[in-house]
Amino acid sequence: MHVVCLDLEGVLVPEVWVSVAERIGVEALKKTTRDIPDYDELMRYRLALVEKHGLKVQDIQEVIAGLEPLPGAKVFLDNLRADHQLIILSDTFSQFATPLMKQLEWPTILCHELVLGEDGVIENYRLRQQDQKRKVVQALHGLNLKVVAAGDSYNDITMLSEADGGILFCPPDNVIKEFPQYPVVRDYDALRAAIEKIVERF
Amino acid sequence: MHVVCLDLEGVLVPEVWVSVAERIGVEALKKTTRDIPDYDELMRYRLALVEKHGLKVQDIQEVIAGLEPLPGAKVFLDNLRADHQLIILSDTFSQFATPLMKQLEWPTILCHELVLGEDGVIENYRLRQQDQKRKVVQALHGLNLKVVAAGDSYNDITMLSEADGGILFCPPDNVIKEFPQYPVVRDYDALRAAIEKIVERF
Repeated sequence: MHVVCLDLEGVLVPEVWVSVAERIGVEALKKTTRDIPDYDELMRYRLALVEKHGLKVQDIQEVIAGLEPLPGAKVFLDNLRADHQLIILSDTFSQFATPLMKQLEWPTILCHELVLGEDGVIENYRLRQQDQKRKVVQALHGLNLKVVAAGDSYNDITMLSEADGGILFCPPDNVIKEFPQYPVVRDYDALRAAIEKIVERF
Repeated sequence: MHVVCLDLEGVLVPEVWVSVAERIGVEALKKTTRDIPDYDELMRYRLALVEKHGLKVQDIQEVIAGLEPLPGAKVFLDNLRADHQLIILSDTFSQFATPLMKQLEWPTILCHELVLGEDGVIENYRLRQQDQKRKVVQALHGLNLKVVAAGDSYNDITMLSEADGGILFCPPDNVIKEFPQYPVVRDYDALRAAIEKIVERF
């Protein structure tokens, strides 16, 4: 038996913080794990901006409520789930993920949590554990499950390296250059084909 | 963050082998983990009957295709998945689970696999690992996830004991008597309430 582990933002849904940046007009919030590989550093940077601009969790949730999965993502996922077990591994926060998971018909997602204060002030974030994507793949292996993983960016690489097969989906050029060992796909048909090719080996 | 782990047969869908027994008229196939706690012993017993009666995987899949989730299970699960992460842990086989998972809108399930020969002859079964339900809960704990678990029978007990909170759903009397430490619920409203009560403590 095997599990497909997929990253969320950039693979199935738009980058949440980029969308917030665009909607709220805070250009500096557009940086993602594609730009700042260290997730802790990126989140400290984001939360400083959130505080500076007085953004509350509701402001961000309002933007997210208006987002849709990437074109074709829902159909891709429906078909994938008919043939494979799926777990979404994301470095987003549960408070942000829910409206997007609803649109995708509630796939299982493992992610982090925001620490909220009164009135929705974002006080901090709580990483469930360091390098969680890699550790989930290791745990699945310990359960005698094979793993195919796909993601788009730096924070997916340890997941890809730990998996029995890893795929880059629409990655930026710097990621392709640094990690040439992974096949690169740029649409859902190619992603599905790459998944099937790996599963065939199991 | 936490995960709800649910047993499948007897909790969300009918007992597959009991349904096969009724449909095909082989009374002896009605025994379940409720009657024979040792799953290996139970499966050897079942496969001997399957061979004796010349049943192929298609015969069993045909029965399963006609099964529906238990009344209320789909609504219960839809609501549950909106608020909690879900993984179904079952000792069924992936070849049997698919048509039922489709009706439940593809929740993630971890289970076992049948070894099929030519023309769908069921040659053997392959347990993914011994005591898999307990091991999944242990693995989730290792990922810094809390776990609520619910099941109905002997093969769920190690999952319940390992979880941060365990619930028995419509268990038979012998299970209640042997394991009085777990709350017993008999409908989905009560199951949901019992889950929420455990999650509140996290």
